[in-house]
Amino acid sequence: MFKRDHTCTELTIEDVNKEVNLCGWVNKRRDHGSMIFIDLRDRYGLCQLVFDPDISSDAQEIAKQLRNEWVIYAKGIVSKRNPGMENKKMETGEIEIKVNFISILSKSKPTPFPIFDDQTTTSEELRLKYRYLDLRRKEIMEKIEMRSKSMLTIRNFLNEHNFLEVNTPILCKSTPEGARDYLVPSRIYPGNYYALPQSPQIFKQLLMIGGTDRYFQLAQCFRDEDLRADRQPEFTQIDIEMSFAKKEDIFNLCENMLKDLFKKCLDVDIQTPFKKLSYDEAMDKYGSDKPDLRYNMEFLDLKDLIKNSTFSVFLDAIKNNNSIKGFIIENGQDLSRKKLDKYEEFAKNFNLKGLSNIRLTNESIKSNISKFFTQKQLEDLTKSLKMKENDVLLIACDKKEIVNQALDHLRRKVAKDRNLIKEKDYKFLWIVDFPLFEKDENENRLKSCHHPFTSPHFDEMDKLDTDPINVKAEAYDLVLNGYEIAGGSQRIHDSKVQNKIFELLNLSKEDISKKFGFFIDALSYGTPPHLGIAFGFDRLNMILSNTDNIRDVIAFPKTLKALDLMMQSPSLVSDDQLKELSISSIENKEITWE
Amino acid sequence: MFKRDHTCTELTIEDVNKEVNLCGWVNKRRDHGSMIFIDLRDRYGLCQLVFDPDISSDAQEIAKQLRNEWVIYAKGIVSKRNPGMENKKMETGEIEIKVNFISILSKSKPTPFPIFDDQTTTSEELRLKYRYLDLRRKEIMEKIEMRSKSMLTIRNFLNEHNFLEVNTPILCKSTPEGARDYLVPSRIYPGNYYALPQSPQIFKQLLMIGGTDRYFQLAQCFRDEDLRADRQPEFTQIDIEMSFAKKEDIFNLCENMLKDLFKKCLDVDIQTPFKKLSYDEAMDKYGSDKPDLRYNMEFLDLKDLIKNSTFSVFLDAIKNNNSIKGFIIENGQDLSRKKLDKYEEFAKNFNLKGLSNIRLTNESIKSNISKFFTQKQLEDLTKSLKMKENDVLLIACDKKEIVNQALDHLRRKVAKDRNLIKEKDYKFLWIVDFPLFEKDENENRLKSCHHPFTSPHFDEMDKLDTDPINVKAEAYDLVLNGYEIAGGSQRIHDSKVQNKIFELLNLSKEDISKKFGFFIDALSYGTPPHLGIAFGFDRLNMILSNTDNIRDVIAFPKTLKALDLMMQSPSLVSDDQLKELSISSIENKEITWE
Repeated sequence: MFKRDHTCTELTIEDVNKEVNLCGWVNKRRDHGSMIFIDLRDRYGLCQLVFDPDISSDAQEIAKQLRNEWVIYAKGIVSKRNPGMENKKMETGEIEIKVNFISILSKSKPTPFPIFDDQTTTSEELRLKYRYLDLRRKEIMEKIEMRSKSMLTIRNFLNEHNFLEVNTPILCKSTPEGARDYLVPSRIYPGNYYALPQSPQIFKQLLMIGGTDRYFQLAQCFRDEDLRADRQPEFTQIDIEMSFAKKEDIFNLCENMLKDLFKKCLDVDIQTPFKKLSYDEAMDKYGSDKPDLRYNMEFLDLKDLIKNSTFSVFLDAIKNNNSIKGFIIENGQDLSRKKLDKYEEFAKNFNLKGLSNIRLTNESIKSNISKFFTQKQLEDLTKSLKMKENDVLLIACDKKEIVNQALDHLRRKVAKDRNLIKEKDYKFLWIVDFPLFEKDENENRLKSCHHPFTSPHFDEMDKLDTDPINVKAEAYDLVLNGYEIAGGSQRIHDSKVQNKIFELLNLSKEDISKKFGFFIDALSYGTPPHLGIAFGFDRLNMILSNTDNIRDVIAFPKTLKALDLMMQSPSLVSDDQLKELSISSIENKEITWE
Repeated sequence: MFKRDHTCTELTIEDVNKEVNLCGWVNKRRDHGSMIFIDLRDRYGLCQLVFDPDISSDAQEIAKQLRNEWVIYAKGIVSKRNPGMENKKMETGEIEIKVNFISILSKSKPTPFPIFDDQTTTSEELRLKYRYLDLRRKEIMEKIEMRSKSMLTIRNFLNEHNFLEVNTPILCKSTPEGARDYLVPSRIYPGNYYALPQSPQIFKQLLMIGGTDRYFQLAQCFRDEDLRADRQPEFTQIDIEMSFAKKEDIFNLCENMLKDLFKKCLDVDIQTPFKKLSYDEAMDKYGSDKPDLRYNMEFLDLKDLIKNSTFSVFLDAIKNNNSIKGFIIENGQDLSRKKLDKYEEFAKNFNLKGLSNIRLTNESIKSNISKFFTQKQLEDLTKSLKMKENDVLLIACDKKEIVNQALDHLRRKVAKDRNLIKEKDYKFLWIVDFPLFEKDENENRLKSCHHPFTSPHFDEMDKLDTDPINVKAEAYDLVLNGYEIAGGSQRIHDSKVQNKIFELLNLSKEDISKKFGFFIDALSYGTPPHLGIAFGFDRLNMILSNTDNIRDVIAFPKTLKALDLMMQSPSLVSDDQLKELSISSIENKEITWE
C-alpha cells in the first residue's frame, strides 16, 4: 500500500531531514552508475528522488526497473543537494529525497509521445486522441488550472455583488431564428425534439421577469455550425443579466470583475474605466468594431489633404463620395519598395485595387504616387499629418467598406510583422451605439442587427418614426486586444416600444407569435427594465492562458470537424436505440478513425 | 427614467429622513381614503410606500391606477411609521417611504394566480406554465437563492482543498451499458450520434490518469428514464475524484464539506465524523441500505427468543433459515388492535403474510399470537428485549428479503404516523462494504453491483479466487435522513486485479473492447490509485430547502413526463431541420398543450 503526505513541490530546504511520503509519475530516470535519479512528477511539479544502494539496495533494485510514466510511491528523507548540484530552474531544485522505500503502484506502456517535453512537436491529432496523456503535460495542465481558478474568481466576484447563479435547462426548445440547433429526439413524444441551447437568452430575461434581479451563470451553449479555428460546438458563456440598472452599471460591474480576475489570475493591474468608442468612431479610426489598441496606427481621413492631387483615382473617389484613408507606420526606414509592394499585394486580397505610400526619409519625401503631386503639396501633406522622419504613410482609396476592411487587415498585419505588440499588454475597449437595424437586402426591409428585444438608444426614440435605419441601439461589445470578448444590450421592457419595433420589422401578429411564442406573453406581466451581457469564456481563457488555440483551454475538446478523437464520438448506435426514439437514419456513414 | 439606490429590505429606522429611490413590483395596494399604501416587492422582500396627497398629489393620482404586479419607480423619504402601525412580520415593518415621485415602468395583465400568497393552492401545472411568475413568489425564490449559495459554498470549499473544477463535455458518446441515453444526431456525419452524459464517470477517471489529482464538477447529467417523483431528465451531480488517497480521505473531505455547507446555508452544526454501518449491518438492523436514523426502532433478531413457541409459521421459518425479526414502538398505549391491523394490512403490500405483535401494558402482556406461547415464555421474551411499559413489538417472519423490505417500509410509516421526526434534525450515515458482485439470475453468472472498475475490498483480494460472490467492494454510500445523497468507490488501478474481475465476469477480450473501448487502453498508461464520489445535488438541495418536491429547487424544471410546460418543449421541428440531420421521424405525435 501507499501513503502520501506531501505533493512534489511542497518540500523546501526547510524540510531537510524530514521523512516524507510522495506519490507520482516517473518523469525521467537517470542512472549514474549505482546511483539512480528519478524526477518524480505530480500535478504540482517535480521533485528529485535519489536511490543510493548504501541507503536501500532493495529500493535501488526496484528503481532500476522504472520506466517513464510508471506510478510510484516513495518514502525517504529530504536532503540538501550537494553543492553545485542545485537546479535553479526547478521549484524544489535545492533538495532531493533519499529514498529508503519504494513501491510500484502501476506500470505504463511506452506513451505515444513524450510527456516531459513541454514544447511538444507532437501533432495535435495524436495529442487529442490521447488527451488523458496530453493533460499530464505542464503546458496543458496549467491551462486547466487557470480555467478552474478563473471560474471561481468570477463566481465569487459576482456573488459578492449579489448575483445569483441559476442553472437554466440544457434540454430546451428549438427556435426558428439564429444558428443551427442541436436536436435531441424525445422518446416519450415521437416526432418531437428538444434542442440544446444556443444561449440562455430567453431564460435570463424570464429570470428578470421573475424578479431575480441579478443573475449570472457559467452557461454551456451549443451551436451546430461549421467550425472556425476559435469555435467549438459546445462552449461556455459568462452570462449576466440585471434589472433596474443602466449600461453604466454593467460597464462598472464588468470592469471591476475583470480587474479582479486579471489581478487574481495573472497578477496584472488593469486600468479602469475602459476606453469607449462608438461603433461609428471605431469604424472610422480602425475600420473594425473590434480594434486592437495595443498599437496605434489610427486611420487618417486624407480626403481634404489629397483633393488637389492630379491622381484620377483619388479625384474619382472624392466625386463618388468614396473613402481615402490611411495610417502611418513609424520607424519605417526598413520598408523598401519591395516590402511595400508585398503589403499592396496583401491589401489586394481584400478587394483593394491599390495601395499608395508616402515615405518621409531624412533626405526627401518618397512616394509611389509622387508624380500626381507637386513637391509643395507633398510637403504640406506630411506637415499637416505631423509626420516624422522615417514615417511611412499607407493610403487606400475605394468604397468605404473596402477601405475599412483592407486597412484593418493591413494594420493588424503590420503590427504583427513589426512586433508592435508588447507581451502582457491588455487593452480593453467598449464599443457602444451599434446600429439598431440593418437592411435585409434580399427582402428590402429592416432587420435587427442583434435581436428584436434590443432597446433603441434612449436618446433616439423619436427617430424611430422618421429615420429608423439610422437609429442606434443600446447595445455594447467589450473588446480586448482585438477580440470581441463580450456583448450585450439593454432589452426593451415597454410594450409600446416593442410593438413599434415589430411594426418596423414588418412582422404580423402571426409572425410574432410563431417566432417568439410565449415570451411575448411573459413580457406583459410586469417586466422590469433590464439589461445584460455575455462573455465568451473560452476566448477569455485563451487570453488568460496566452494561447491562440481554443482547444488548449478545454479539458476534452472537439476538432474543427466536431469530432472527439479520444472517445471516437459521434458514433453509430443500435437500431433498437433509434427505434425506441421513433427515428431512423436516412444515411449511415461510418467514420474512419485513425 | 428611473434610479435605484436601495433594495426594498435595506432600509431601517436608521435611514429615517433619507431620500431614497426604489424600484419593484406592486405586491398589494390598500386605499385608506385619500391615503394609498403600496407594498413594494423586489427579490429581497417588501417595503411600504405611502402616497399622501399632501406630499404629492401627482404621485397619489398615479398610485390610484396601480394594480398588482405593475413595475414602478418611487422616490421618497424614509419615515418612522406611526405608533401602532408597525408590522413586526415585515423586515422593514418599522418604516415606510413617503413618496414624492412615482413613475410606472411597466404594467401587468392580471396574473393567472396571486403572487403575494406564499402558501399557494394553485396547481403545480399552472405554476410551471407561468414559471416566470411563480419565481416571484418568496417560497420559490428562497430556494433558488439557497441553490446558488450552496453551489458557491461547495465550490469554495473544494477549491480550498486544492480541487480543480473541470468541465467535461455534454456532447459525449453513447455507451451500451447503463440507463437509456439521450441522443443527438450529428449533421456532419449522417447516421452518427452523440449522447448526453449520464455522468462524467469515464471523464473523471481519465482526469486522474491525466494527473489532475483532485477534480470536482457541478456536473449536468442526463437520463432518459421514466421519471419518478424525485427525478428529472436533467439533474446535477457534485462529482468528485481524487488520486493517491483512501476512502478515509473521501469521508473526511465530504464530512467537512457538508459541515461547512450546513453551517453556511442553514446555520446548523452537524456532528462529524458520521456514523458508519456496513451494508450487512444496515440490512440487518434496518432492512435498508439507506436507513433514516432520525428515529430508532432498530430491528431485533427474534429467532432465539421465539424458537420455543408452538407457532408453526415461526418453526417452519427457523427450519428453512428464514428471518424472524421485529422492532419496538415506544409509548404505544394508543395502538389499538384496529390500528395494529392496519399496520398488518400495510405490511402485506410488501408480500409479508402476516404481522404479529406483543404489547406490554401496565397490567399484562397482550399479543395476537399469545396462544402459541406460555405466559413464562412471553415474560422472558419481553424481559430479554428490555421492553418497557407500553412498548409494542411488531414481528415479521418470512424470507429475509421480504422481512427486510416490509419492516423497512413499516418502520418509516410508523415514524411518520407517530411524528417521530424532529425538524432540523440531520442524521448522516456512511454505508460501507457493499457486495462487489451479484448473481445475474438470467445468465447464471456474476455481474458487478456497481461497475466493473470498482475495487474489491482491500482485505478480501484473496477471496476473489475462492468465494467471489461474498467479496465486498471498496464502495460506499452517504445517507442523510433516509435518502441516499451520495455514492462512490475506490477504482481499480492495477491491471492484474482488473483482469481478474473481467475473468470473473466471464468477459472475453472482444466483450471488453466493445463495452469499455479505449478506456481499458487508457488504464494501461500509468493509472494512479484513485477514488471518488458523486452527490445528487438536487436532492441535497431538497433537504437544504426542506421540500419534498425536486421541481422546487430547479429554476425551470420539467414535469414527470419530461415536458417543459412553459417553453412547450419538446416540439415538432421543420422537415428541413431533420433533413439536414439525415434523420426522419417514424411517427409524429403532436403534443396538446393546455
